[in-house]
Amino acid sequence: MSVVDLFGQSLQVINIGLESFAQNLRQERVPVVQMDWRPPAAGAEGVGETPLRIDRKQANREAVDRLLRGLPVLTGVSTAGAVIPGMRKDLFLHAGPPISWERMCGPMRGAVIGGILFEGLAASEEDAEQLAASGAIAFEPCHEHDAVGPMAGVTTWSMPVWVVENRTFGNRAYCTLNEGLGKVLRYGAYAPPVIEHLRWMAEELGPVLALTMERHGPLDLRALIAQALQMGDEGHNRSRAGTSLLIRELAPELVRLKVKRKKLSEVLRFLHSNDHTFLNLSMPSAKCMLDAANGVEGSSMLVTMTRNGTDFGIRLAGLPERWFTAPANLVRGLYFPGYSESDAALDIGDSAITETAGLGGFAMAAAPAIVQFVGGTPQDALRLTQEMYEITLAESQSWQIPNLGFRGTPSGIDLFRVLTSGILPSINTGIAHKDPGVGMIGAGLVQPPWNCFQSAYQAYVQQYAATLSGNGDNQRIKEEKQ
Amino acid sequence: MSVVDLFGQSLQVINIGLESFAQNLRQERVPVVQMDWRPPAAGAEGVGETPLRIDRKQANREAVDRLLRGLPVLTGVSTAGAVIPGMRKDLFLHAGPPISWERMCGPMRGAVIGGILFEGLAASEEDAEQLAASGAIAFEPCHEHDAVGPMAGVTTWSMPVWVVENRTFGNRAYCTLNEGLGKVLRYGAYAPPVIEHLRWMAEELGPVLALTMERHGPLDLRALIAQALQMGDEGHNRSRAGTSLLIRELAPELVRLKVKRKKLSEVLRFLHSNDHTFLNLSMPSAKCMLDAANGVEGSSMLVTMTRNGTDFGIRLAGLPERWFTAPANLVRGLYFPGYSESDAALDIGDSAITETAGLGGFAMAAAPAIVQFVGGTPQDALRLTQEMYEITLAESQSWQIPNLGFRGTPSGIDLFRVLTSGILPSINTGIAHKDPGVGMIGAGLVQPPWNCFQSAYQAYVQQYAATLSGNGDNQRIKEEKQ
Repeated sequence: MSVVDLFGQSLQVINIGLESFAQNLRQERVPVVQMDWRPPAAGAEGVGETPLRIDRKQANREAVDRLLRGLPVLTGVSTAGAVIPGMRKDLFLHAGPPISWERMCGPMRGAVIGGILFEGLAASEEDAEQLAASGAIAFEPCHEHDAVGPMAGVTTWSMPVWVVENRTFGNRAYCTLNEGLGKVLRYGAYAPPVIEHLRWMAEELGPVLALTMERHGPLDLRALIAQALQMGDEGHNRSRAGTSLLIRELAPELVRLKVKRKKLSEVLRFLHSNDHTFLNLSMPSAKCMLDAANGVEGSSMLVTMTRNGTDFGIRLAGLPERWFTAPANLVRGLYFPGYSESDAALDIGDSAITETAGLGGFAMAAAPAIVQFVGGTPQDALRLTQEMYEITLAESQSWQIPNLGFRGTPSGIDLFRVLTSGILPSINTGIAHKDPGVGMIGAGLVQPPWNCFQSAYQAYVQQYAATLSGNGDNQRIKEEKQ
Repeated sequence: MSVVDLFGQSLQVINIGLESFAQNLRQERVPVVQMDWRPPAAGAEGVGETPLRIDRKQANREAVDRLLRGLPVLTGVSTAGAVIPGMRKDLFLHAGPPISWERMCGPMRGAVIGGILFEGLAASEEDAEQLAASGAIAFEPCHEHDAVGPMAGVTTWSMPVWVVENRTFGNRAYCTLNEGLGKVLRYGAYAPPVIEHLRWMAEELGPVLALTMERHGPLDLRALIAQALQMGDEGHNRSRAGTSLLIRELAPELVRLKVKRKKLSEVLRFLHSNDHTFLNLSMPSAKCMLDAANGVEGSSMLVTMTRNGTDFGIRLAGLPERWFTAPANLVRGLYFPGYSESDAALDIGDSAITETAGLGGFAMAAAPAIVQFVGGTPQDALRLTQEMYEITLAESQSWQIPNLGFRGTPSGIDLFRVLTSGILPSINTGIAHKDPGVGMIGAGLVQPPWNCFQSAYQAYVQQYAATLSGNGDNQRIKEEKQ
């Protein structure tokens, strides 16, 4: 049969690897057999072959069970200085793994400058920059203080914060209130209107919400997120439903406060104007759920994925104090008019905590409309969530995706599954301008760098490999007998 | 080959007719070829063959264009007596086509009794029933007074109503405020708490919303519905997103009213407690959009589908004053615990106006979570919307379905397409108990009876058939020459 004959025949295809090729052919009504095969991930050879001194699967079952049993509840609004453990006036918390002023990207530097101006520690941009570089201010990750912050994540003493408690385990997480879109501190803007807005948030918004929560009592965020997932949110970049549900929940109490009606109206108007309000509640919800799984001996489940705009960092439940970092990636996505990838900062923010807990990119099938914000098609959103089941340990009982027949969200990323499948976690995220002072310029999708997972694997094996003598060896012999 | 041999072979199926059989087989991984064939609808022989004296397709283009150009805007809240054209104290409006007291079903009788008690026209159930039967009260369809009402749809003089204006054409539509779920007037309940609740709605809820709307100014409902469709609503039985968006829109104005904070809080709490609040806004939105297409000479587009619990009625744009009715069907769906089909009233309510405008059952693909309320699977919801494209004239420019790649909702039902395709419109709806005084017992899916469409076709042909002499004949000759 010549090649010419081949073209006269109807096409029959066996597709090896990327499922999306097969999907395209099926759309053209070409019969396709899909082979479930992937190239081994670079550097992932031998993963899972080293005998361990612990039962990894049992450890992961415990870790993911602790994650899924988490019950995040909004208990109130306070200030960072009043509630965040270890908070000091000369300590600025930031997103991502640890980083020095010298290595900070543009938007994070901008947010630090803004934070200094907001706290009145300096009067001008130049003075603020000098102060930041002087060493007089300490920089530590939000994540090391039971906190999370979107984008630059800069959190200072006087900022109001949501207080979220994991009712199952008693631990708490904290997050600033969302400032809205456009020129805002978390994207590195610090012009006078940005600082004025932060003052209003500290003096009006925070106190009004604190009083409202006192009247309201604890609010079940796990249930609220479950509802939002049935209303087209994914808990990260699309929070319109969560924000709407929060407003209707709080408004009946807010309206009863002995505060001037005009001020109450301004608070309601601001919440209404900002669909990202709920992001700053889904983040600490995810954080306090994951923190409860942190420290489970032998678990290879991720409890942290986060970025500071320079490095991407992950942490494992079984290696709780260790950061595994690598240079952050560029976000691929949709840019606002006038901007392109050449203007973009690298991947930044603690908001990937939502993906770590099974929301955001992992729940995109629940939010097909988000593709208008981050790019792609609703089919891409479905496929993306379906891929994430390959690298996760369980499906949520509480959070379901109607489009997938009410299947639970893929929850609890396993380091070993990532390495052996070659599938990286998918994160959807906002894009900051690379220079301080500009702000948001788009939104899109991003993946962590492979190197984080490779170095985490090396450390994990070093920690948990069975040795030829002592307990480890006994464990190995026991396992071989089973 | 014997029959026994057949079972040894792998199954290969050619499915003729209902697509769902093929889908079931595909789920079992049996290869299926689907033939696109349907049995001709009973009584639909010869449809479209009679020469007409008008250009039907052109007429339908105009009708659906008027439908799709409609811009429903919420302009305020008033009372039925103050704004509904032709309203009188001794006139009760009701859902569906015209009906006498004698032929009314249980829940509609219950709602009439409740309406009489609410208006203070009688003091007891017995007196109210006697008054209703005496002829002293006139009964007319909401639809004939620019109004719509869910379920029994009983609308009386003192009831507060939403006022919705079609900004493109200037016409208005009116609808009562939603009472909530459970034992409520529209499902035929009339016990003292039902009447007390109606009084609170008239004395507190209505006036507070009226003042709020005065402060707020007109609210674009077309845009709000567009958002709600991206948040898992379909605009009929799932209105959680629409209700949430309405609350966050109104709350900043409501809180500024010079009304006691406790009363304002009660209004916000009631709206928050009732996800069906927005149904009573999607209905008049659809109504005023369709009314603008009513009267387009020669159009076979439906401008009304509605039911009074006894009869189902449709009206055509090209035959504006004519009702085509047939006995209403039983709703198939999910029942609340303790109830079954044997307790159910027949299909009832003006809410099918949402389907007539391309929402509700026609937009179910936007609302996969609704299957938990009306039965079926998210796949059924997708299929149902896809079928509705077969019987509609256009796709909405404003209302898109993310799950279908942002395709516009199927809009403008064509009588001829229904008859030639054999596909009936799908309506999702609540289910009332058949006895007065009980209330809601479930929700599900229903179709109109065929006879409505058959009698509408006969009347349409009678009206628009070309004759052998005069203009009609000339038109026919002209068409043949083209």
